[in-house]
Amino acid sequence: MEISARNALKGTVKAVEMGAVNAEVTLEVAASVEITAIITKASAEKLGLSVGKEAYAVVKASDVMVAID
Amino acid sequence: MEISARNALKGTVKAVEMGAVNAEVTLEVAASVEITAIITKASAEKLGLSVGKEAYAVVKASDVMVAID
Amino acid sequence: MEISARNALKGTVKAVEMGAVNAEVTLEVAASVEITAIITKASAEKLGLSVGKEAYAVVKASDVMVAID
Amino acid sequence: MEISARNALKGTVKAVEMGAVNAEVTLEVAASVEITAIITKASAEKLGLSVGKEAYAVVKASDVMVAID
Amino acid sequence: MEISARNALKGTVKAVEMGAVNAEVTLEVAASVEITAIITKASAEKLGLSVGKEAYAVVKASDVMVAID
Amino acid sequence: MEISARNALKGTVKAVEMGAVNAEVTLEVAASVEITAIITKASAEKLGLSVGKEAYAVVKASDVMVAID
Repeated sequence: MEISARNALKGTVKAVEMGAVNAEVTLEVAASVEITAIITKASAEKLGLSVGKEAYAVVKASDVMVAID
Repeated sequence: MEISARNALKGTVKAVEMGAVNAEVTLEVAASVEITAIITKASAEKLGLSVGKEAYAVVKASDVMVAID
Repeated sequence: MEISARNALKGTVKAVEMGAVNAEVTLEVAASVEITAIITKASAEKLGLSVGKEAYAVVKASDVMVAID
Repeated sequence: MEISARNALKGTVKAVEMGAVNAEVTLEVAASVEITAIITKASAEKLGLSVGKEAYAVVKASDVMVAID
Repeated sequence: MEISARNALKGTVKAVEMGAVNAEVTLEVAASVEITAIITKASAEKLGLSVGKEAYAVVKASDVMVAID
Repeated sequence: MEISARNALKGTVKAVEMGAVNAEVTLEVAASVEITAIITKASAEKLGLSVGKEAYAVVKASDVMVAID
């Protein structure tokens, strides 16, 4: 499946923390660059996410903000 | 200002394309790792975003999805 | 690519309207059930979206609200 | 109340799963077409959502992505 | 229609700026408290939004971030 | 840090409810005007959010909808 989301950053799962409904998944997408996702627990289980697995962080461009110092 | 958004990736502006209401801004946050943002044209102008400027891509964790091959 | 987004509704492109930065794409996902997406013009072009093409409307569960009459 | 969100799909509640803060609600909006929402537990209770109830899945157009096979 | 979105702030339209696909709408929800929305141009027209009209800014709780100085 | 999000409403924390992964935070941004946020529990702890603290509700303009009666 090819998706319209402009951002798909390849990385490695660093942590998975399960809640009752949601899961928090952290990916390392470059050396010292991590991205944290909150997805449903059902999705985390369906994708078989566990530490060390290769995965992508996918973000729609309209959900990205820009900040400056 | 310190914000609850879990993801703030430091990078450099690679491209800014202005529309009537929105602007598309591309940041390089690591070698060969780019993130594209759609923000309002007013925000892009207020932040003075232009190619080469240092900036952060900020994303709320609940807006990040995870995908596998 | 398999994605964590819980909702991927298969349908047919009914309309594509291009703006300067964004595009508005309408899919029919069941008889008389349409979903409208705003995606970047670049994504609409990359996916080759045009009327009659099969496509999916993909929505993260945390972006869905529920309403009652 | 009439809302700007372009997508309001009428359906029937198929499942409600409560977490500590959030709830996962699944609606059937057409035969074999389901949409899953994560809303706050407080909202699920306020709306009185339970299996069999008629409800709408509401999604802002800028939160819809498009994918192709 | 009663919606799960936790935040519906009543206010008055202060400005409407139309783009090709999107519109930027600014509401004053309390003295000196303004909220800006980007909605589709089609929605802005359907709702008949114009300066001085009463309207609500509606935001899903999972789209709100918190910041401190 | 200066951010592209168009909406940053200053207020006071009225309530914080912790879940396993997420937290629900309510801010009063004007007399009788409250905004509720769902953020990660980790962010709520990192920001030291507690009742009475001054904080901002930050919302990207593309996440705001408009409704009329």
